[in-house]
Amino acid sequence: MNNQKSYQSFLKDQLIIPSILLKDYVNLGLNEQEVMIILQIHRFYMEGNHFPTPDELADYVTISAQDCSQILRKLIQKNILQIEQNHNEMNVLNEQYSLEPLWVNLYTEKVIQQDKSISEEQT
Amino acid sequence: MNNQKSYQSFLKDQLIIPSILLKDYVNLGLNEQEVMIILQIHRFYMEGNHFPTPDELADYVTISAQDCSQILRKLIQKNILQIEQNHNEMNVLNEQYSLEPLWVNLYTEKVIQQDKSISEEQT
Amino acid sequence: MNNQKSYQSFLKDQLIIPSILLKDYVNLGLNEQEVMIILQIHRFYMEGNHFPTPDELADYVTISAQDCSQILRKLIQKNILQIEQNHNEMNVLNEQYSLEPLWVNLYTEKVIQQDKSISEEQT
Amino acid sequence: MNNQKSYQSFLKDQLIIPSILLKDYVNLGLNEQEVMIILQIHRFYMEGNHFPTPDELADYVTISAQDCSQILRKLIQKNILQIEQNHNEMNVLNEQYSLEPLWVNLYTEKVIQQDKSISEEQT
Repeated sequence: MNNQKSYQSFLKDQLIIPSILLKDYVNLGLNEQEVMIILQIHRFYMEGNHFPTPDELADYVTISAQDCSQILRKLIQKNILQIEQNHNEMNVLNEQYSLEPLWVNLYTEKVIQQDKSISEEQT
Repeated sequence: MNNQKSYQSFLKDQLIIPSILLKDYVNLGLNEQEVMIILQIHRFYMEGNHFPTPDELADYVTISAQDCSQILRKLIQKNILQIEQNHNEMNVLNEQYSLEPLWVNLYTEKVIQQDKSISEEQT
Repeated sequence: MNNQKSYQSFLKDQLIIPSILLKDYVNLGLNEQEVMIILQIHRFYMEGNHFPTPDELADYVTISAQDCSQILRKLIQKNILQIEQNHNEMNVLNEQYSLEPLWVNLYTEKVIQQDKSISEEQT
Repeated sequence: MNNQKSYQSFLKDQLIIPSILLKDYVNLGLNEQEVMIILQIHRFYMEGNHFPTPDELADYVTISAQDCSQILRKLIQKNILQIEQNHNEMNVLNEQYSLEPLWVNLYTEKVIQQDKSISEEQT
C-alpha cells in the first residue's frame, strides 16, 4: 500500500458473495466456468451494470464471447439466471439480469442441508 | 426465509472476496478452475480451515482430488499460493496455505492499472 | 502493511453489517449508544461469541457495564434483541442473543420505504 | 422476503466495515456519536456521496446538523478525517472526505496489539 488512498480503495474493492454458491454449485449441476460467469454478472450488478454483454463478460474470463452467450442461455434454461424487462421513465424497454432464482434455489431448499453438512464437518 | 434465524444465517453465510481477483485473473495467466480453487481455499481459510486437503477441495468442485493437487502445485510454482510452516505451542509443525502472494501481486502492481480501466469503462 | 500477512489479516478483519441499520435506526427510536451495542453484539456473534456479557461489551464502548445491562434490557423490551435458549448435546441449557427480530423489522417492513428514499435521494 | 427481488436487494444492502474500528475506537478517544458519524461518512462514500453535508448526516442520526458540524471539525483536528481537494475535468474545485488517516492509524500501529489481544481473549 504505497499511497494515501490505499485502505479506502481496498475497502471499496471488496465484493460480498454468498458462500453457499461456492459450497453447492456442484449440486446444482454447474461447473467452474458457469460459476465464474455468475460471479462476473454479480460483480457487474454490484458495480451498477445490470446487463453486461457477452463481450463485456469475455473481457474478464478465458472464455470466448460466443461461449459466454451459450453459458448465459444455459443458465437461463436451468432457471438460475433470468432476464427482467422494465419500462423506464421515458417508457424505453430496459432489460437486466437477475440472479434471484439462483439465490432462492440455494437458500430456501439448501439451508437445512448446509447446516447438516457444517455439523458433519465439525465432527 | 422460513424460520426465525434466517437473516442471521444469511448474514453469517456471506463471504468477502477481492473484486480485483475476478477482474485480473486472466492477466495473471489463471483459468476458471484455478480461480475456483483459490476461492475455495479463501473460503476454507475464513471458516478456520487453513490447510484443506485435495480431497476436501474436490468435494466442492467438479475437479478430481488428483487434479486439485496438480492445480495446488501449479499455484505454488507461480507464486500465487504459498505454504507457511509454524510450530505451535506443543512444538508440533503446522502447515497452512497463504494467499498473501496473490493479494500482494494483485494490489501492489495492479491498483494503478485498475483505476485506469475503471475510468476507461466510465467513458 | 509491514508484514507478509497483511492483506490476509485485513480481509479477515472485515465485518459485514446491514446498511439499513445505519439508515433506519432513528425511525426505530434508537440512539447511537444503543446502535453501538447492537453492532458489538453482531461483531461478537460473527466471531463466535453468541452471548457477550455486559462486562465484555463495556470493554469496547464508552459505556459502563451497568449501563450496558440497561441497554440490553431495553433492546429486549423493544423486541430488537432476543435471548434464545437451547439445550446442547450434554443437555446443558445454553443462552444466546439473536438480532433476528431487528433484521426482520428492518427488512420486511422497511424495504419498500428504503427503495423510495433511495430514488428520492437521486433526484 | 416477500418479493422476487429480495435476496438481490439484501445482498446489495450489505456494507463492509473494518471490525478494528469497533474494537479500538475507545483507544482513539472516540465516543459512540463520533463513531456513528464515521460510519455514516463511510456508508455515504460507498454509495458514491463523497462529501455529505452536516444536514445529510443529521438525517440519519439523533444529532443536530450543528452538532454534526462540530463532530466533523473535531474528527479533522484529531487527524481521523481529512478533506481532499481535487480539480475535476472542468477544472472545478472538488472537495471530499477521506477516512484514510483513520484506517492507517487503526491498521498500521494497532495490528500487532490487536493480534495480542486476540490471543489473550482466547486463553
